[in-house]
Amino acid sequence: MSLFGFIEYKDASPEVRAIYDDIMATRKTDWINNFWKSIAHDPATLKRTWESITQIMAPGALDPLTKEMIYVAVSASNGCEYCIASHTASARKQGMTDAQFKELMAVVGMANETNRLVKGYQVEIDDRFKPQTK
Amino acid sequence: MSLFGFIEYKDASPEVRAIYDDIMATRKTDWINNFWKSIAHDPATLKRTWESITQIMAPGALDPLTKEMIYVAVSASNGCEYCIASHTASARKQGMTDAQFKELMAVVGMANETNRLVKGYQVEIDDRFKPQTK
Amino acid sequence: MSLFGFIEYKDASPEVRAIYDDIMATRKTDWINNFWKSIAHDPATLKRTWESITQIMAPGALDPLTKEMIYVAVSASNGCEYCIASHTASARKQGMTDAQFKELMAVVGMANETNRLVKGYQVEIDDRFKPQTK
Amino acid sequence: MSLFGFIEYKDASPEVRAIYDDIMATRKTDWINNFWKSIAHDPATLKRTWESITQIMAPGALDPLTKEMIYVAVSASNGCEYCIASHTASARKQGMTDAQFKELMAVVGMANETNRLVKGYQVEIDDRFKPQTK
Amino acid sequence: MSLFGFIEYKDASPEVRAIYDDIMATRKTDWINNFWKSIAHDPATLKRTWESITQIMAPGALDPLTKEMIYVAVSASNGCEYCIASHTASARKQGMTDAQFKELMAVVGMANETNRLVKGYQVEIDDRFKPQTK
Amino acid sequence: MSLFGFIEYKDASPEVRAIYDDIMATRKTDWINNFWKSIAHDPATLKRTWESITQIMAPGALDPLTKEMIYVAVSASNGCEYCIASHTASARKQGMTDAQFKELMAVVGMANETNRLVKGYQVEIDDRFKPQTK
Repeated sequence: MSLFGFIEYKDASPEVRAIYDDIMATRKTDWINNFWKSIAHDPATLKRTWESITQIMAPGALDPLTKEMIYVAVSASNGCEYCIASHTASARKQGMTDAQFKELMAVVGMANETNRLVKGYQVEIDDRFKPQTK
Repeated sequence: MSLFGFIEYKDASPEVRAIYDDIMATRKTDWINNFWKSIAHDPATLKRTWESITQIMAPGALDPLTKEMIYVAVSASNGCEYCIASHTASARKQGMTDAQFKELMAVVGMANETNRLVKGYQVEIDDRFKPQTK
Repeated sequence: MSLFGFIEYKDASPEVRAIYDDIMATRKTDWINNFWKSIAHDPATLKRTWESITQIMAPGALDPLTKEMIYVAVSASNGCEYCIASHTASARKQGMTDAQFKELMAVVGMANETNRLVKGYQVEIDDRFKPQTK
Repeated sequence: MSLFGFIEYKDASPEVRAIYDDIMATRKTDWINNFWKSIAHDPATLKRTWESITQIMAPGALDPLTKEMIYVAVSASNGCEYCIASHTASARKQGMTDAQFKELMAVVGMANETNRLVKGYQVEIDDRFKPQTK
Repeated sequence: MSLFGFIEYKDASPEVRAIYDDIMATRKTDWINNFWKSIAHDPATLKRTWESITQIMAPGALDPLTKEMIYVAVSASNGCEYCIASHTASARKQGMTDAQFKELMAVVGMANETNRLVKGYQVEIDDRFKPQTK
Repeated sequence: MSLFGFIEYKDASPEVRAIYDDIMATRKTDWINNFWKSIAHDPATLKRTWESITQIMAPGALDPLTKEMIYVAVSASNGCEYCIASHTASARKQGMTDAQFKELMAVVGMANETNRLVKGYQVEIDDRFKPQTK
């Protein structure tokens, strides 16, 4: 279920189908998850989002597992259930162990706690932490 | 500046001073940043927060650099300027390169974008992403 | 389902019923949605909220469709599923096309992304963007 | 400083001045803080906001101090610096002690932490916690 | 349902069982709610979270009911459904009346509204609200 | 000021300079604001973000002014001061009147209020508001 329903592969336009093919090839899977089938109603957003994600989540200075864990961290902090579930699955596919997930959650919880202590106590930024550049 | 002002080392009670000593020893530094000097007005919170952070941020299944980057990810997502500045500094001390920071931010931005697309399009969680356990 | 259950029209006090009548008359419908039937347990909040919404969502410098889309934008950003569903329905009733919804979501996603890039990179406000007034 | 600048008492329209008078009388002070002087550019919002706050923050089932502390809790959680500063001042005026503020912050921090653990671990609501009503 | 499933008492390690016993003794109940049974997969987090909550939610300068209402306020503001349901139940157990809940929600709603007006109008903090301390 | 400082036009690489040229041409201005000069340290993010924004903010089913106001709505809701200031300036450039801004803010405030009432009262989505599609 989603606002406009899901666009299945067989019903997709050639434009959308090309993205679906790329998603499956890149991820080495034979299915498309609901997120893509939902935003496929807006092919421009589907294409832009997929291309951005491909670029951003590719191995680089950070490895794909670390990137997936950061994705989970943000999604948990924002309370996006779908994103938590899907990116936890992706992180596991990238090799995340249960122990790593647990430490990830502990950090996310702690950061959310101290973020509010800092605001509540109205703590000014230390000069040493300020950007030195103009 | 902070709500109750900063408690400097020389003015600290033995209880607070013991935590300050532990912070400096653990971090191999000779100064205490404003966050700790602000919440030191509540020694129970100071002690609990420091002990929790020590436990959570210690090397484990995730290395300290990864943990600091997750801390930055959450803080950027929440918009806590102090926490962004201080944990970016900590991450750099743990070896974060500029290239790593840039990729971190790209992931944080992307996750915040798709978190909202998911909510807006009212996307249901795929069965495959749901926890299998009872 | 909601914390105190729903107060149906037939069970409502004259005070609540008057608001229900006004909601149905204003919206030209013959039913009351769950939000109002839930907060009706607090007639003061029901009355204040309805009167505020009536005032705020009325046509003015902005037309009702634009206002409903802004409501959807905020609700998607906050992750309020009920509000997303109900105000997307209201926006459609005001004439929102599917194409407009898709562009709305694209902007909401993008804004959430750059909001975090700005915080993470610690970008200072340009002088030209600052309020000129004292 | 604020987007349209501040509307001072001497420059205010009779309509705005009447609200200012009511604010000062209700609060037993002789000044108006920047929030009101900023939104006074929109007299309808000024009036509606002031009347809502007056109704909501009045003594009732909860005393004014508890209400101000809840206001601080939400504002700290949302990271609204102005609101934290102004409502912490109001809470103190209502008698909030430093010890109370510290416990308030500890609860706010803790709630923000467990809110994310719950989301990250994808914890389902216990039947006993669900509303029993239809 | 939760990511790793629930650890029931009969299946718990002695370490986890000791915490469960403490939870039931402290709360004078004979059951453990899903949150604890979910994070029990990480005994260090279970222990740290329980001990922190015990310390923070104990009667002090604020009474337990006020603390539970603050917990509900933060959870409602963050949109954590589990936390709203469980802490509303806890608050009721501490004696929260329906009238108190309704006023609590009214304040939470109002604070969320003015938090955004302040940001949108770019309101500067009044000198009188700034911390006086260095 | 920003984490890595600003990359001015004269110091920019040809790659970055090409984006700067496009920004200035598109916006018909002769300057680059701090956001772009900050993320220019990551040319891939600069390029992707600029291209996405160009695509998303272009006139389409929604006009540019409506899009800028939605951007302001999200930014105010998230508390991103830079984004509020810069997109309020952009919206004005697109013709936003003061009256429109005030109504925009009123809607943003109201949506943030009812988003929390809905969550706090645990309101279930009406069947009529649910997506009808599979």
